[in-house]
Amino acid sequence: CICYSAKGNKQLVQVKNPYLDTMEEDILYHFSLGTKTHNLPEMFGDIKFVCVGGSSNRMKAFAQFIHQELEMPGNPEEVSDICEATDRYCMYKVGPVLSMSHGMGVPSISIMLHELIKLLHHAQCRDVVLFRLGTSGGVGLAPGTVVVTDKAVDYSFLAQFEQVVLGKVVTRSTELDEEVANELLQCSSELQNFPTVIGNTLCTHDFYEGKHRVLCSGCFRLEASTRKSCSSYLLVRWEALINPWSFFL
Amino acid sequence: CICYSAKGNKQLVQVKNPYLDTMEEDILYHFSLGTKTHNLPEMFGDIKFVCVGGSSNRMKAFAQFIHQELEMPGNPEEVSDICEATDRYCMYKVGPVLSMSHGMGVPSISIMLHELIKLLHHAQCRDVVLFRLGTSGGVGLAPGTVVVTDKAVDYSFLAQFEQVVLGKVVTRSTELDEEVANELLQCSSELQNFPTVIGNTLCTHDFYEGKHRVLCSGCFRLEASTRKSCSSYLLVRWEALINPWSFFL
Repeated sequence: CICYSAKGNKQLVQVKNPYLDTMEEDILYHFSLGTKTHNLPEMFGDIKFVCVGGSSNRMKAFAQFIHQELEMPGNPEEVSDICEATDRYCMYKVGPVLSMSHGMGVPSISIMLHELIKLLHHAQCRDVVLFRLGTSGGVGLAPGTVVVTDKAVDYSFLAQFEQVVLGKVVTRSTELDEEVANELLQCSSELQNFPTVIGNTLCTHDFYEGKHRVLCSGCFRLEASTRKSCSSYLLVRWEALINPWSFFL
Repeated sequence: CICYSAKGNKQLVQVKNPYLDTMEEDILYHFSLGTKTHNLPEMFGDIKFVCVGGSSNRMKAFAQFIHQELEMPGNPEEVSDICEATDRYCMYKVGPVLSMSHGMGVPSISIMLHELIKLLHHAQCRDVVLFRLGTSGGVGLAPGTVVVTDKAVDYSFLAQFEQVVLGKVVTRSTELDEEVANELLQCSSELQNFPTVIGNTLCTHDFYEGKHRVLCSGCFRLEASTRKSCSSYLLVRWEALINPWSFFL
């Protein structure tokens, strides 16, 4: 599936934290980059597309693929990891495209997004579109179907993300950019052999117990009815919503 | 800080999921290991200690350190990654010690723990002690202090972990093994220059906004009072609890 996450508004990437401008230096610790140690506008100022995914190997392969697609000079095999000084994430830049890994799970993605948004801000990037690329399970879709996500839903199937900020629960919308979703769907119609739909993506905080997988180590005792619950958990809701689903973590 | 997570009961590592025994094959996907493709009892049956931490580089360095400490034959530099076929985690085995990475955040740790517990079960390991090793911030402690965690608390400072299982919130205790904590404290008294205490560890799902860091990209608008809130969030509770704290993600 493809989950895109935001689109620039023909302007600089904004950060809403007023304290950032008062800082002498901003160290993007998990990228091993900083405003004093690196010339971020020179390194990243021309970025228009940011593509993120869990696996570092996969995002390297994606950077190499984009290198070929854009017919960039040089050897695609030699793309170099901008974050090689840290083992937290990997990051490759190919022309206007940034390809980077985010590890597994929302907290890992969250650290990456905070530092990425600050990076794009410091680099004075404009009109940036962000995508998440990833594989997932699906309900009601043929294997291999590409799902362009228009909203991400939580375990209760609501298009929201609950985050605890300083001990208080803050709820944020997870509805994504409709225009970008339609553009992606339009692109897919020009390709052969990639059945593509617009749908929802379910996100949980646990790959095994949070979803429908009965292969957990079983920290909880499975009751007799649980296996049935596992399969019905998603199907009942899917039928109620009559919508294609994909799942990612 | 050191956070240990569980201690074996002089017996085989148990899994409570009854479906595992009915499966022809169990593939530990994120380790790139499986019950049919690998002889897990032969590879892992003698493990007594599992040490996990976020960074793959750090866990490799830890494996090399243990190699030297245990005076194992061979070159410590040549420890090899058992999970090298995947980029999700790294894993090193040095005698009875397994050293592996878990990435950042609870969901990433959760996938690793499910597959680790199943691995120890399939390998018929006995009397296994699990530790988490990591750095963290602290309140009320001198920098460099080692905290042996006796319980992990959530954002509301309760010793519990809320997990959503098939759409329902399940609450689990996070109180750890008192005996192991006291053994670790005893060990530290034999070392010089490592001030060590038993304390709590705060765990949140967000490195920036979930804790006290004002360096977030600011997805929420910081109110005039928020910076004060950031610093008081932890201190007020720390004073109320009169206890040393460390934080990890």
